[in-house]
Amino acid sequence: MLDDLIQDKCGVFGIWGDKNASERTFVGLHLLQHRGQEHCGIVSATKKKFYKKHCEGIVNEAFSNEDLRNLRGRAAIGHVKYTTQGSSSMVNAQPFLRHTKHGNIALAHNGEFANQNSLREMFEKEGHVFTTTSDTELPIHFYGLTDGNTIEEKMRDTFELLKPAYAIVMLTRNELMGIRDVSGVRPLVIGELSNGATIFASETVAFDAIGAKYIGEVEPGELVIVNDGGIRRVQLLERKERLSCVFEHIYFGRPDSFQFGSDVTNSVLRKELGAQLYREHPIEADVVTPMPDSSNDAALGFSEESYKNGKGTPFGFGIVRSHYIGRTFIEPTQALRDIGVTKKFNVNKSEVQGKSVVVVDDSIIRATTLKKLVKKIKHFGAKEVHVRVTSPPYKHACYLGINTPEKKRLIAHREGSVDGVRKFIGADSLGYLSKEGMLSNKYFKGMSYCTHCFDGVRKIRRS
Amino acid sequence: MLDDLIQDKCGVFGIWGDKNASERTFVGLHLLQHRGQEHCGIVSATKKKFYKKHCEGIVNEAFSNEDLRNLRGRAAIGHVKYTTQGSSSMVNAQPFLRHTKHGNIALAHNGEFANQNSLREMFEKEGHVFTTTSDTELPIHFYGLTDGNTIEEKMRDTFELLKPAYAIVMLTRNELMGIRDVSGVRPLVIGELSNGATIFASETVAFDAIGAKYIGEVEPGELVIVNDGGIRRVQLLERKERLSCVFEHIYFGRPDSFQFGSDVTNSVLRKELGAQLYREHPIEADVVTPMPDSSNDAALGFSEESYKNGKGTPFGFGIVRSHYIGRTFIEPTQALRDIGVTKKFNVNKSEVQGKSVVVVDDSIIRATTLKKLVKKIKHFGAKEVHVRVTSPPYKHACYLGINTPEKKRLIAHREGSVDGVRKFIGADSLGYLSKEGMLSNKYFKGMSYCTHCFDGVRKIRRS
Amino acid sequence: MLDDLIQDKCGVFGIWGDKNASERTFVGLHLLQHRGQEHCGIVSATKKKFYKKHCEGIVNEAFSNEDLRNLRGRAAIGHVKYTTQGSSSMVNAQPFLRHTKHGNIALAHNGEFANQNSLREMFEKEGHVFTTTSDTELPIHFYGLTDGNTIEEKMRDTFELLKPAYAIVMLTRNELMGIRDVSGVRPLVIGELSNGATIFASETVAFDAIGAKYIGEVEPGELVIVNDGGIRRVQLLERKERLSCVFEHIYFGRPDSFQFGSDVTNSVLRKELGAQLYREHPIEADVVTPMPDSSNDAALGFSEESYKNGKGTPFGFGIVRSHYIGRTFIEPTQALRDIGVTKKFNVNKSEVQGKSVVVVDDSIIRATTLKKLVKKIKHFGAKEVHVRVTSPPYKHACYLGINTPEKKRLIAHREGSVDGVRKFIGADSLGYLSKEGMLSNKYFKGMSYCTHCFDGVRKIRRS
Amino acid sequence: MLDDLIQDKCGVFGIWGDKNASERTFVGLHLLQHRGQEHCGIVSATKKKFYKKHCEGIVNEAFSNEDLRNLRGRAAIGHVKYTTQGSSSMVNAQPFLRHTKHGNIALAHNGEFANQNSLREMFEKEGHVFTTTSDTELPIHFYGLTDGNTIEEKMRDTFELLKPAYAIVMLTRNELMGIRDVSGVRPLVIGELSNGATIFASETVAFDAIGAKYIGEVEPGELVIVNDGGIRRVQLLERKERLSCVFEHIYFGRPDSFQFGSDVTNSVLRKELGAQLYREHPIEADVVTPMPDSSNDAALGFSEESYKNGKGTPFGFGIVRSHYIGRTFIEPTQALRDIGVTKKFNVNKSEVQGKSVVVVDDSIIRATTLKKLVKKIKHFGAKEVHVRVTSPPYKHACYLGINTPEKKRLIAHREGSVDGVRKFIGADSLGYLSKEGMLSNKYFKGMSYCTHCFDGVRKIRRS
Repeated sequence: MLDDLIQDKCGVFGIWGDKNASERTFVGLHLLQHRGQEHCGIVSATKKKFYKKHCEGIVNEAFSNEDLRNLRGRAAIGHVKYTTQGSSSMVNAQPFLRHTKHGNIALAHNGEFANQNSLREMFEKEGHVFTTTSDTELPIHFYGLTDGNTIEEKMRDTFELLKPAYAIVMLTRNELMGIRDVSGVRPLVIGELSNGATIFASETVAFDAIGAKYIGEVEPGELVIVNDGGIRRVQLLERKERLSCVFEHIYFGRPDSFQFGSDVTNSVLRKELGAQLYREHPIEADVVTPMPDSSNDAALGFSEESYKNGKGTPFGFGIVRSHYIGRTFIEPTQALRDIGVTKKFNVNKSEVQGKSVVVVDDSIIRATTLKKLVKKIKHFGAKEVHVRVTSPPYKHACYLGINTPEKKRLIAHREGSVDGVRKFIGADSLGYLSKEGMLSNKYFKGMSYCTHCFDGVRKIRRS
Repeated sequence: MLDDLIQDKCGVFGIWGDKNASERTFVGLHLLQHRGQEHCGIVSATKKKFYKKHCEGIVNEAFSNEDLRNLRGRAAIGHVKYTTQGSSSMVNAQPFLRHTKHGNIALAHNGEFANQNSLREMFEKEGHVFTTTSDTELPIHFYGLTDGNTIEEKMRDTFELLKPAYAIVMLTRNELMGIRDVSGVRPLVIGELSNGATIFASETVAFDAIGAKYIGEVEPGELVIVNDGGIRRVQLLERKERLSCVFEHIYFGRPDSFQFGSDVTNSVLRKELGAQLYREHPIEADVVTPMPDSSNDAALGFSEESYKNGKGTPFGFGIVRSHYIGRTFIEPTQALRDIGVTKKFNVNKSEVQGKSVVVVDDSIIRATTLKKLVKKIKHFGAKEVHVRVTSPPYKHACYLGINTPEKKRLIAHREGSVDGVRKFIGADSLGYLSKEGMLSNKYFKGMSYCTHCFDGVRKIRRS
Repeated sequence: MLDDLIQDKCGVFGIWGDKNASERTFVGLHLLQHRGQEHCGIVSATKKKFYKKHCEGIVNEAFSNEDLRNLRGRAAIGHVKYTTQGSSSMVNAQPFLRHTKHGNIALAHNGEFANQNSLREMFEKEGHVFTTTSDTELPIHFYGLTDGNTIEEKMRDTFELLKPAYAIVMLTRNELMGIRDVSGVRPLVIGELSNGATIFASETVAFDAIGAKYIGEVEPGELVIVNDGGIRRVQLLERKERLSCVFEHIYFGRPDSFQFGSDVTNSVLRKELGAQLYREHPIEADVVTPMPDSSNDAALGFSEESYKNGKGTPFGFGIVRSHYIGRTFIEPTQALRDIGVTKKFNVNKSEVQGKSVVVVDDSIIRATTLKKLVKKIKHFGAKEVHVRVTSPPYKHACYLGINTPEKKRLIAHREGSVDGVRKFIGADSLGYLSKEGMLSNKYFKGMSYCTHCFDGVRKIRRS
Repeated sequence: MLDDLIQDKCGVFGIWGDKNASERTFVGLHLLQHRGQEHCGIVSATKKKFYKKHCEGIVNEAFSNEDLRNLRGRAAIGHVKYTTQGSSSMVNAQPFLRHTKHGNIALAHNGEFANQNSLREMFEKEGHVFTTTSDTELPIHFYGLTDGNTIEEKMRDTFELLKPAYAIVMLTRNELMGIRDVSGVRPLVIGELSNGATIFASETVAFDAIGAKYIGEVEPGELVIVNDGGIRRVQLLERKERLSCVFEHIYFGRPDSFQFGSDVTNSVLRKELGAQLYREHPIEADVVTPMPDSSNDAALGFSEESYKNGKGTPFGFGIVRSHYIGRTFIEPTQALRDIGVTKKFNVNKSEVQGKSVVVVDDSIIRATTLKKLVKKIKHFGAKEVHVRVTSPPYKHACYLGINTPEKKRLIAHREGSVDGVRKFIGADSLGYLSKEGMLSNKYFKGMSYCTHCFDGVRKIRRS
């Protein structure tokens, strides 16, 4: 997949019990940056006071040493976010910090509540006021209302009526909490520092970066409470059928993250997806090139499998990605657009000229850039271009927290058939991995996934 | 008074029925800039959608032409604000835009609800959530709760329990409203464009700038509703004793504004204050110099009165003010501070050397800069320096919406006596206008004022 | 005069022998800010190394504490500049720092060499390369060439062929120098700190701000050399007829500056100009208002003289100036422009309504804003508006270092007659001060001035 | 190699004869961004006027559409630059634009003149003035002096005395020129658009991005003149022994660039370097991981060769690189630094745990990050870590235009022996490619290279 077409909405991070809490949050958010590049924020807290900083842009440019010093306290939560809204949407930037009868509460959310509209309407009828258009305000309003005596009772009141998908970290004066919806749609993992501090993060890479040990997932429906007395795990809500987002494995998650309880990192899963793809759509060619970098491992798996089953097609870097995109402000004039300028990706002529080329991609969303690259590969002298995709045709916009283009721009939906897509992108052949082949991945064993974007089946009701 | 010591918290503006609504709001806010220089914001609305932009800094630098084009619609409200809080306090920036069962509501507030603490506590007990630490959220929470059928009913529910001080403009999809507390503490005036558009503003100068006609005040306790059907004025709440802020006349208001229903602009009132000051504390000297620019008119009145009653003391500009302060980021080192650097004010040697000098100021708050200036005037060869002040000793921090230093930094409170203050500033004589002299101003006739900062009398209860 | 129409091109500052050299330069430049608001720069030096920082915008916003700490050394020079060129013109920002066989040289220049074109051509013929389009590079090229043994010889070679106008500060590793052209066109004064440090500045206000004592002018043709051994004054070039810029007294100079050796500050000179203006064009009216703030003193002198010679017309602030202009980025749409929006100046209705109003201005350049103000004064009910100007008709663009609009935009040139200008601005009467009246100012005694902008006489040849 | 340790100083671009000249320069510079990320600049020209814009930061963030529109004309040159100097060094930003007797000249330079010091001294003795500390001013000073009649004569005078290394594009009103030193040290290639426009660039990738055809190198000592009459190639200076920078092939050049006349792109050369490395230092292991992305192709070649010669070691992505580094402003506290935070690179646990790991890198400069990564690979459970390097020990700082750390920080110099380096980085074995092995690369055939950084042999004299 070419970036920017579909996007995880967020990454979250939380830490309790470390004197460098905000600095570690900063580093952790940096490692989660692939989950959202447009806004980032940190809220920290001492026993007495909360501190907040929201920024536009990437973590590594947004915070100064002074900012981190000002974010005082031994506890902090953070958030990275993808959004297409303008700067005035800073009001939507997370973590949210709110004032209630229970004191201050800060919250960072990855996901989307399926029943957000009916709940918001209910609250407004009761006279509640909302500051943003974001569904992330909803749990805070439940929290403001609850009269629960214990924190568990308060949290049950807060989340009982909220439907998936959510993976949330919350910070009060007294505790840090991580909670995940009953179907475990979005990821949330627990880590530990050698000094005893507890950490939550969307992915395990955030632990690697700060030297923390990966403990395990926050389980579906589970509430994990951390305070100075230690960590307490509570099955707050009854688990339902597990519906983890398979796209985390296919594309979103970093290749070096362990996700959804898997024993291996995503790179291993992706090599297996590439191998299965070869078994379903074998081909003999001169080179297999990934769409860098998201399909690197899948292409490697495809190539390796080809050697086990035939004469083999070598892996090569036929497409080169620029590392210096930054925030692009320039729109090329029509003159330059027409000649197919692709500033982000270039084709390496020596790797494709005179060859039969297999391009492995993890998914095809709109196909506009892929079409240009296929054209450029042929322009540089490739004999044939065969496209292989390590997921089924992407036909349905996500309803559980992923930002997807409107349905009519999804090429698999628009063209209707695989051959229609093949013609659109100008490839000599096109093979998608089957849903069954994808789910047969041996490293997925025992887990179950949401596949709505491929099959259109909604298992979570909107009300 | 030397700026930055006490500060109006805000200026507000609103307009309904003009295709250049946001542009006129921009110009109007620029003319209200003296009421707050740190944050500014505009919310505009079409029949379908609201648009918002908040900025740090002054209006004339904060908005681009593109910003104003993006603030679409024939209605808008705006706000300028003084604050000492950091950039993260952008969340406190007004106008507030909120979502309720009655739809979107935008609100800009000048003032401070005397009973804010008890109301906030009441709301939180009921389970309400607050986004900011500002009391300006309170009316929106009442608005979210009301089930009034008409807009008047809704507004009565919204403001019934809110105690002064407030002057508020509100914008919904269907109407623009201006409302003022029952004692008329903070100013709010109504204007009209030749195309029929209606305007609210904190001061009449905002009308001058955009070519609008001044119609009159929003009366104490009055609600003024403007929609496409015209303007409707409703006595929403029962009027109480008028307690307009006398400091608006003395210092805050622009010299070219008509305030609190006066027939003359503040410059005329201030000349009269200066004249009365001369009558109470006459002196023969070589020059009368104002503290520029806030005391220009008062010093002129003092000088003029001196000619009527004696040989007269000519007016002269003995103190020169820099126009290029901007946002000051530099803190001088001790070395430079000790030699009395005053980057904002300089003394004009030829105007004071060898002379007996009268310095007229509108008020004395902390007196630190005044003390340096008196020293510099003497350093430049003045024989004597006499200070005259067109208001009584400032001894009590405002509780109705003015930002004042903590009490122990108020020099009149700290020193206790006029002579103590005189010694502190190093003047040869010091004369304050009496409260009675101040209130005897012939242009004040028929009005009554809050004089709490001088006499400490609180007429509005906190609960 | 309304700002931004004609502009001094620069202000310069230099200091030798103070451990807070760059900080004092910063403060000094701030006080010279009225001489140029678009670029500013400081070069400092230790015995070993030079440090430089150029910025856009005003001094008080451009430099951080860290910047000043980085500008190390006990010597520094600085520059403020007015320019209409874009950001890429930063290369033209001064002080210039260049590398020659004599080592590094930094230079800041106020003025314009009348023979710059022929000299530049000569240098280019010799194979020299220029980095900028500024004439300030010329003395540095002479300096690069000289083989003089002493610094005096070097400086004679550097300046011998350069024609006025210039007032320059130069910094080498070994000395700070101030030099002024043979006719003394542009100002340059010498000051002294109590710790023995020597200072150069365009105006004496820079000394007031940092606690320095005013010693006197750098004389026409004089070179003043400052090093650790003390100060040495050399008549480097033969003095010619003094041609100081009279506009410094009329408008450019701060009211609190002593200029061109005068015993009094500009405010006193300007009151006398106003008095003479009344004597030449007397009138009985209800109020005399200055164009703030540049004409404040002139209007005061006009009013005072009216009392000596008749029943007298009181001084009043009929026009109010905004202090919050900043950098204006917004262009009003035609709709707002047509109603005469003047964001910078407003008319105070109570000061003009029903009155005969005299507006005193220091000069009339393009007259576009003045015309709008006259209209607004009448709109607010003035019976009559009489304009009085404390200088002769401005008809010729300056050739000695002042930025003037092109000739066809000079209203006195374009309209040809005083009555033509009067009609253009819509005044009931218009009186300009005569050249003779202007020069008869008793405080000018013994000095002579360039009056080219009024009479068109060029006394300095271009080649 | 880990970025930021050694750095090409620049990339250059030039175009003549296209109405979108500045826009194409912008795109071309973006593709050359890996050659310098701190400053970028474009100078364009019409027949009458030159336009310039210099920026800090990366190309894709630095220029707005408005900037590009303002850079008018059908000809432009551009430059990207690496520098460690502060913002005030903007004066050193290229292209330089200068004014001479031949008119304006703009110049962008990649390289470093070996005899710069003696030439600069010579010029200064002659009275010339330099604006910057950069040697790029030197050719412009020769150009300012020449009285050559033809452009060829002028260029001969300009470059005759300048010793390598340089690859330069120059722009005058009348022509665009590309010129390269007599030893061909730094790269410069020629391209052509279908509309006839001619292009120069440091690398061919810039042609791919804008749809241009690669024509060939500017030959050593060759001057290529482009004007409206077409293209003219002149052997301006006598060719010497070719000393192209071998590090362009090893590391600097993009993998998809053709460099130094090679028939294949760098990726192919690098795979061959990897293969030769395996032949010199064979090993059987469980995985070969590149240091991403610069060693990707070399690691692939190493793995492929291992299959030809033994049981084979599979290629895998054991190290993952962050794409979101941006400009890093934060310095981690000691607490975080000690635990080995590597924000830019992470290790993928599943790819290394329980395995014998080969890490292929293109070069080892300081080895500080490599040492941390080896430690982290072992921390994640690798049995053994073997490091292989596709170049000889890097022992000598470059004197021909590459930015290298000071000699004492070069680990191969400091440790003295291969085993010393191995111990420092904590690897189980370490193998460097021999110089002979490196130069035996079949794709290098017929070319000769500078290998000074490896063997210390200086073939170009400093005077």
